[in-house]
Amino acid sequence: MTHPLFEKHRATLDAAVQAIRTRGFWTPYPEMPSPKVYGETANEDGKRAVEACFGQDFPLDQAGETGRLAPERSPYGTELGVRYPVCSPSALVEAAQAAQDGWQRLGAEGRVGVCLEILERLNKRSFEIAHAVMLTSGQGWMMAFQAGGPHAQDRGLEAVAYAWDEMSRIPAETVWEKPQGKNPPLRMKKHFEIVGRGVALVIGCGTFPTWNTYPGFFAALATGNPVIVKPHEHAILPAAITVRIAREVLAEQGLDPNLVSLAVVTKREDTQALATHPAVKSIDFTGGNLFGEWLIDNARQAQVYAELAGVNNVVVESTDAYKAMLRNLAFTLCLYSGQMCTTTQAILVPAGGIDTDQGHKSFDEFASDLAAAIDKTLADPAVATAVLGAIQSADTLRRIDEAGEYGKVVLASRKLEHPEFPNAEVRTPVLLTCDASDEKSYMVERFGPVSFVVRVADADAAVALSERIVREHGALTVGVYSTKPQVLDAMTAATMHAGAALSINLTGAVFVNQSAAFSDYHGVGMNPAANASYADSAFVANRFRVVQRRYHVE
Amino acid sequence: MTHPLFEKHRATLDAAVQAIRTRGFWTPYPEMPSPKVYGETANEDGKRAVEACFGQDFPLDQAGETGRLAPERSPYGTELGVRYPVCSPSALVEAAQAAQDGWQRLGAEGRVGVCLEILERLNKRSFEIAHAVMLTSGQGWMMAFQAGGPHAQDRGLEAVAYAWDEMSRIPAETVWEKPQGKNPPLRMKKHFEIVGRGVALVIGCGTFPTWNTYPGFFAALATGNPVIVKPHEHAILPAAITVRIAREVLAEQGLDPNLVSLAVVTKREDTQALATHPAVKSIDFTGGNLFGEWLIDNARQAQVYAELAGVNNVVVESTDAYKAMLRNLAFTLCLYSGQMCTTTQAILVPAGGIDTDQGHKSFDEFASDLAAAIDKTLADPAVATAVLGAIQSADTLRRIDEAGEYGKVVLASRKLEHPEFPNAEVRTPVLLTCDASDEKSYMVERFGPVSFVVRVADADAAVALSERIVREHGALTVGVYSTKPQVLDAMTAATMHAGAALSINLTGAVFVNQSAAFSDYHGVGMNPAANASYADSAFVANRFRVVQRRYHVE
Repeated sequence: MTHPLFEKHRATLDAAVQAIRTRGFWTPYPEMPSPKVYGETANEDGKRAVEACFGQDFPLDQAGETGRLAPERSPYGTELGVRYPVCSPSALVEAAQAAQDGWQRLGAEGRVGVCLEILERLNKRSFEIAHAVMLTSGQGWMMAFQAGGPHAQDRGLEAVAYAWDEMSRIPAETVWEKPQGKNPPLRMKKHFEIVGRGVALVIGCGTFPTWNTYPGFFAALATGNPVIVKPHEHAILPAAITVRIAREVLAEQGLDPNLVSLAVVTKREDTQALATHPAVKSIDFTGGNLFGEWLIDNARQAQVYAELAGVNNVVVESTDAYKAMLRNLAFTLCLYSGQMCTTTQAILVPAGGIDTDQGHKSFDEFASDLAAAIDKTLADPAVATAVLGAIQSADTLRRIDEAGEYGKVVLASRKLEHPEFPNAEVRTPVLLTCDASDEKSYMVERFGPVSFVVRVADADAAVALSERIVREHGALTVGVYSTKPQVLDAMTAATMHAGAALSINLTGAVFVNQSAAFSDYHGVGMNPAANASYADSAFVANRFRVVQRRYHVE
Repeated sequence: MTHPLFEKHRATLDAAVQAIRTRGFWTPYPEMPSPKVYGETANEDGKRAVEACFGQDFPLDQAGETGRLAPERSPYGTELGVRYPVCSPSALVEAAQAAQDGWQRLGAEGRVGVCLEILERLNKRSFEIAHAVMLTSGQGWMMAFQAGGPHAQDRGLEAVAYAWDEMSRIPAETVWEKPQGKNPPLRMKKHFEIVGRGVALVIGCGTFPTWNTYPGFFAALATGNPVIVKPHEHAILPAAITVRIAREVLAEQGLDPNLVSLAVVTKREDTQALATHPAVKSIDFTGGNLFGEWLIDNARQAQVYAELAGVNNVVVESTDAYKAMLRNLAFTLCLYSGQMCTTTQAILVPAGGIDTDQGHKSFDEFASDLAAAIDKTLADPAVATAVLGAIQSADTLRRIDEAGEYGKVVLASRKLEHPEFPNAEVRTPVLLTCDASDEKSYMVERFGPVSFVVRVADADAAVALSERIVREHGALTVGVYSTKPQVLDAMTAATMHAGAALSINLTGAVFVNQSAAFSDYHGVGMNPAANASYADSAFVANRFRVVQRRYHVE
C-alpha cells in the first residue's frame, strides 16, 4: 500500500539518500536557468506571474484572517504592493494542530512523497520564485535563480532525505519473542508510531528567503509536523508562493492545507507571541543574534535551530597562485555585496607579508592588490550590478556609510547605477585594514560588503586568532591560503577544535561562501554562529518521537 | 586498518544494529545469573570483590584528587565505608578535555570497538556489579543482577549501536566533481571529521545506578566525548567499578584514561558548578524535577537529556482475565517496592466498576481484590523480601509513613524483617483509593510503594484523565485493561497524542514497568517525565558534529 507520490518520487529519494551518504556532487534540480530545461517561456512566465501579484491580494485562504498587509520594500526600488493575509497567530496554530493527525496517519512514506511532490512543483516554478527572490532580497538574477531556486530545493530535498533515512529505519511493528527456557516464550506484538513533536515555526531572513527556509520547512514537515512560515517582512513573496504551492499539493491529496501556513507579522511582539505559544515545538531561525538569543532564552518549550551572526575569516599565509587567490577572494567579497552569512569578513595576514609565486608581498601590498582585484571584478558595469545585486536593508547601507570609522580604508564603497532599476541601492564593497588588536572593529559581524585585512604577528598568531574568533564569535566559513603543510595542519586542527568548515587554497570557481547541498555541511552547528547544520541527522532526529504500544499475542 | 577491538566485536555490533532496526527480542548478555554462563565461582567472586572494597580506598587514580570520602549508606544496613577520591571539578574537566583529541582521532570504529570491549568486561563482572547495585540501591538480588548487570549493559550497547548507526553513514572523505558543461569539471577533495561536542556529564540516580547511567555514558563516549560520571551519593560503587573498568580498557589501548572519570560530589552546589562548566556540553540526568529543571534552566551551555518524575497510570475498564490482571498489577506494585521510575502510581477505575470474567466487580471490590493480590504476592516472606528489596531513601520511608493522608487506605504498609540483613528497611506497598477530583493526592509523583485506585466517572473519563495526566505531569508508562476495541483505540490515540508508551492487557510475565532494550523505547521523550528516550537516533545524533575541510584536486 505504498503512497502513489512516494512511488512517483522513489528514484529521486533513493538517489538523494545515496548522495548524503557519499557526499559527492548530485542534484535533481538543474542550476542553469536554461529554456531547454525549464521551458522556452519559463522566464517570461515566471516574471509575469510575479508581476501579476503586484498591488493585489495574494491568494491564500488561511484560518483566522484579520486583514491584509503589504509590507515589502524592494532593494531594487520596484513597487510591489502585494497584500498578504494577516492571520491571528492562535488561529494559525490551532488550524495547524488540527491538521497534524491526518498528516501523522499518512505515515513516513506518504509524508515524504508529498514533500517530494511539493519540491518538484517548486522546481518547475523556479523562475517565478527566482524573480520573487530577486525583487525582495536584492540578489542579482543568477544568484536569485540558483540560490533561490534549485539550490534551495536541493537543501529542502536534503532535509527530506535525512528525515527519510531516520524514519525508514523504524519498523511499524514487530513481534518480540523472549525465550523462557523450557516454557513457551513470551510473545508480544508491538506497534511503533512516528509522531511529530508539534507545530514548527520557520522564521526566514531577508537575504535568502528560500535557501534558509526550506531546510527547516521540509525537515519539520517530513517528520510529521505542521509548519508555520514567518518570513522576513521585506521578503514575503518567495515564502508565500512556496506556502501556496504546498497547500495546493496538500489539498489535491485530500489533506488539510492548514498543515502549512504563512504568518505575516510585522511587530516583533507578535512573532514573540507565536514563538512562545505552548503548541510550537520547534523553531528554525535565521537572523541576527539579538532575536536569535531571545528565542533561545524565551521559547523554552521549543527546540530552536538557529543560524546567527559570525565573523567568517580567512588566513592568508602564502600562495603559489597569487592572482587566482586574489580573484577568488575578490569575487567572494563582491558576490551579493557580501550579504551572505558565509561571506568573509576578516582576512588575517602576517604583518611581515606573504610569500607568493609573484614574489614576497608586504601586508600593504596584499591589501591594495586585493582592492585592485575587487575593482577589476567590478570593472564592467553590467557584470558589476549582476554580481553585486542591491543592498537589502537600511542597516547595511548605514554600515557601509560608517565603515571608515572601523579601520583604514583601502577601497571605498561606490554607489552604482543599475541599468534596469534606477532606484536600486547598489554598492561596491569597502575594504579596510586594521591591527589584530583592533578587535572592536573586525571582531563583530558587520553584515554586508565591509571586510578587513587584519594585521597579525605571524602565521601562528593568525591560526590562533582564527580559532579564537570562531570559538568566541562564531563563523560559518573559514578559509586558509598556504603552501606549507604545517600551516594547513594547524588550521585543520584549529577548525576541528572550534567547529568550523575549512576551505583550503580556493583559487578557482569555488568560493569560500558557497556550500553545496548533499556534500557540504553548512554551518557545522558547533560554534556561536549556528547551533545546527544543513543538514545532518541531528537536524531531523529530534523533530519526532516514536510512540509505541504492545500486547501479548499467541 | 580496522581497529582490532572493532573487528573483535563486529558480530555483536552488527547484531545490535539489526536488533534496533527490527526491535524483536535480542541480547548478547544472558540475564540469568547462571554459573554455567558466568562461571561456577562468579557469584562468590563478585561478592568478595565488593566486600574487599569495604572500608578501603577505592583504587582510582584521577586528576586533581583532594581527599577521600565514603558517603554511601546501604538500604540493607550494611556498613560499606568505601572511600572514593574527591577531585577538583575543574581538574576533572581539564583532564577530560585533554583526553578528547586522542579519542576523536581514534575514529568511529576504534571508539565503538573500545566501548564494546568495556561492555564485555562489564558483562563478565556482572556479579560484582550486581552485588554493588544491590547493596547501594536496595534492590533485591535478582533485579540487581538483571537490571544492574545484563539489562543495563543492553541499554549501553543499544546506545553504542545507535551511535554507530549514525556515525557509520558519514563518509570520511569524498571527491566532489561538478560538471561544467564543455569545460573540465570542478573537482574537490573533502574530508569529514566526526567531532564530539565536548565533555559529557552523566548524573546517576540512587535506585538504578547502572541502568540509568549506561545509555548516556555510552552514547556520549561512542560519539567522541569524554565522560564524567557523577553518581548518586548513596550509590557510588557500581559507577566506580564501571569507571575503573573503562579506564583499564582505555589504558590498555594506549588511550588517556582520564577520558572517563568519577566525580564524587556530595554538595549540590558542587554538582551545579560542574554542570555549568563551559566545557560541559551534554548532561544526562535521572532524578527529581527540582534539580532536573534547575539543570535545564541553568546549564544552558549543554544539551540536557533528562528523565524526571511522572505519574504513571493504568486504566482498568474491563478484563477477561481478572485474576491474572490482579496478579500482574500486584507484582508491578511490589517489585522493588515501587521504586522504579516506571511503577504505576494511579489506577483509574470507573465508579460503576468493571466487567470481568469473574462477573461485575464494583470499584471497592476491585480495590480490595488488588490489595489481596498484593498480600498474596508477598505471602512467602522469602519471596517478599526478594521482590521488595529495601527502601532506598529516607524520603521514601517518609512518604510511606504519611501515605494515609493522601487517600483512604485499602492496604497499609508493613515493615518486614529481612532474613539476611537485620537492619534492612523493608516495606510492603500502600494501596489507597481516592476520587478523580483529589488531584492533589494522586497527581503528583509519590515515588515508592504508594499507589492509588482512582475513582473516575466512566471509561471515557478514564481515558481523558490518563491523557491529561501524561500531558501535564508526564508518565514513563501507561497501561490499559479492556476487552473493548473502542476503549483500546481511544487509549492508543490518547497515548499517541500525549506521547507515552502503552501496555495493553498485560496478564502474564511482562509488566508495565519493564522496558526491554533493543525493542521498547523507554520514556518516549515527548511528555514532562522525560525529554529523551532510551534509545533512538535523537539520543545520539546531537552529541557530535561533522567538521569538514575541502580543497581542489586534479
